[in-house]
Amino acid sequence: MSELAIIRDGGMVIREGKIDIVGSSNEIKKIAGDAEVVDAGGRVVFPGFVDAHTHLVFAGNRLDDFERRARGESYAQIARVGGGIWSTVGKTRAASDVDLLAQAKKHGEWFLRSGTTTVEAKSGYGLTVEDELKILRVMQRLNEETPLEVVPTFLGAHAVPRNLETDEYIALLVDEMLPQIARQNLAEFCDVFCERGYFDVEPSRRILKAARKLGLRLRIHADQLTNSGGAELAAELNATTADHLEKTDEQGIAALKSAGVQPVLLPGSVYALGLSDYPRTREMIEAGLAVVIATDFNPGSSPTPSMPMILSLACTQMKMSPSEAITAATINAAYSLNRGNTIGSLEAGKLANFSIFDCEDYRELAYWFGIPQTHSVFVKGKRVV
Amino acid sequence: MSELAIIRDGGMVIREGKIDIVGSSNEIKKIAGDAEVVDAGGRVVFPGFVDAHTHLVFAGNRLDDFERRARGESYAQIARVGGGIWSTVGKTRAASDVDLLAQAKKHGEWFLRSGTTTVEAKSGYGLTVEDELKILRVMQRLNEETPLEVVPTFLGAHAVPRNLETDEYIALLVDEMLPQIARQNLAEFCDVFCERGYFDVEPSRRILKAARKLGLRLRIHADQLTNSGGAELAAELNATTADHLEKTDEQGIAALKSAGVQPVLLPGSVYALGLSDYPRTREMIEAGLAVVIATDFNPGSSPTPSMPMILSLACTQMKMSPSEAITAATINAAYSLNRGNTIGSLEAGKLANFSIFDCEDYRELAYWFGIPQTHSVFVKGKRVV
Repeated sequence: MSELAIIRDGGMVIREGKIDIVGSSNEIKKIAGDAEVVDAGGRVVFPGFVDAHTHLVFAGNRLDDFERRARGESYAQIARVGGGIWSTVGKTRAASDVDLLAQAKKHGEWFLRSGTTTVEAKSGYGLTVEDELKILRVMQRLNEETPLEVVPTFLGAHAVPRNLETDEYIALLVDEMLPQIARQNLAEFCDVFCERGYFDVEPSRRILKAARKLGLRLRIHADQLTNSGGAELAAELNATTADHLEKTDEQGIAALKSAGVQPVLLPGSVYALGLSDYPRTREMIEAGLAVVIATDFNPGSSPTPSMPMILSLACTQMKMSPSEAITAATINAAYSLNRGNTIGSLEAGKLANFSIFDCEDYRELAYWFGIPQTHSVFVKGKRVV
Repeated sequence: MSELAIIRDGGMVIREGKIDIVGSSNEIKKIAGDAEVVDAGGRVVFPGFVDAHTHLVFAGNRLDDFERRARGESYAQIARVGGGIWSTVGKTRAASDVDLLAQAKKHGEWFLRSGTTTVEAKSGYGLTVEDELKILRVMQRLNEETPLEVVPTFLGAHAVPRNLETDEYIALLVDEMLPQIARQNLAEFCDVFCERGYFDVEPSRRILKAARKLGLRLRIHADQLTNSGGAELAAELNATTADHLEKTDEQGIAALKSAGVQPVLLPGSVYALGLSDYPRTREMIEAGLAVVIATDFNPGSSPTPSMPMILSLACTQMKMSPSEAITAATINAAYSLNRGNTIGSLEAGKLANFSIFDCEDYRELAYWFGIPQTHSVFVKGKRVV
């Protein structure tokens, strides 16, 4: 993870939205013929970031929760006054698809401006058949109508709706939501919030197995609040990723390793919740896991769409080196979305998704924090920022 | 500190760089006559941020230290391989005034784009008569040649140069540097890095008393690494501010309160160093202190010029409310720079320094993090970003 293949004075030939040749600027000049030239001016060129864990589509914000949390109120206190996930579920259900798309487009623009060209996006603020489908269709339109590539994940198992028993909701998920979503091809992945008091290991297993039967790949919210067997379940089911892992111990890490599950680490939510229990990142890297870092963009616990901010958190709070963090935010993330062959690095044959940053050294992107360093962003060879 | 005077649908009349009238948009429209109209479009308008603690003028960066720290190396290990403050001192001494000004202008632009219109800036990477004067003159030119207002502070007592004994250097500070700086009017404040092993309480007292005699006001780097009497010294000398205070206890807080010293809190360096010992912010606010927050912008421990980032850190890590954080970053900071009557709030008679942010609610500036929300920035009524 710590080896970046950096080309000094490098260049690329781009043809029909793909990278045709990568090499030194001098070689490229000889080959390029009468191609249109984009001069990066000695700046650093990165592959477009791949953000492998977001909750991109929601309505409203959670400013009141934010203010209460700053005052020291607990999640339970905040929930009692109508905050927490239910406030976002309520607003998202009430929003029309047009409204929801407009808000997602605003946030999608933030991602692009931060240098992210692909995002995984989870449903999970609808929690009814109709509202989950509405959210997944908004993702589809975002994909079609903006340059941002959206990889949809069904997270109906985000929380149990208040008007249903857990068993009733699981039946709804397995018998109605999942078949409809699979039939309409609205999601590539299925995810579950596997946590004591939300979806325990057994119901999580049931939902994920049903999803797998329908052809969906698996991701799991695992061990965020407690070390509750999420990592082991991910290993057992050969999930593509296990996400969060703040409480995962050495057994969990060994399980992930044995099954080749990629950990997706989310320092933005640890930071924004004012906590300090970052996951055991160095142990995971030393175990040989292909670690991914992502924003966890969502209105409650991680209101940042910025992958450079996540690089800063990874290096300062999780002791990743800048090169490890960049690997985790690009090529490793691409593999975790089943797109390792088409995005995540600047190599011949891949999509020409890249950003130019106002830096002379790649490490500056993780070092200076809180300021935009984006110069321009290209998707399939076309400038979009 | 938690009371902001928010005007909904507000407006201002600006005349000759100053705020003439503040009120509701409707009233303003009636009065304004044929004035040029700037429509903020329902966005939030803030007073320009006042950043009361920065080390703005330096050469180079500390990317190698950053990478080593991410790998878990200690400050001592980093210093042994040529890192730490001495690498910045070496580069700053070697830089011409033209080079130094160019780098400061680049960073100054970052401040403006983040919505900061006034910065305090400390010397302290020269540590010779000539180099300290060079740095202070660069600040003067920055002030003259850019829209950013720079308030200069002499921090010759940042570290003891390696080729001198502490006593020799103190004599140089007191007998040569300070008189020249005072005579040439190159600094408004004098600061000392008061810390065991750097400048202990007794030498700090000597330097600060000499500065005060020459008409300089006082600031102190106090209790950052150890609770070593810095807050009490600030109180004894009636310093304007005591800065950092990560290790200050209840006695120190009481001392600051009794003498009316303003605490300047610097969460950026706690964050960027990967530490967790934020100062006792709530105790300070509850004691009635007029708390200030600032970036501590510097290449070693706080590479951020962004006051919105500091608002985020203040709310998530120090449990300040958004309104307290904004007060600390504007009007309280203005008073700490002896400019409470001219900047720091949007009131009739003050300079028309303000920013328009792409938000509908002022709390969004602290809530969404890692992304720029600046729409435009005005200094003395003129748009500069």
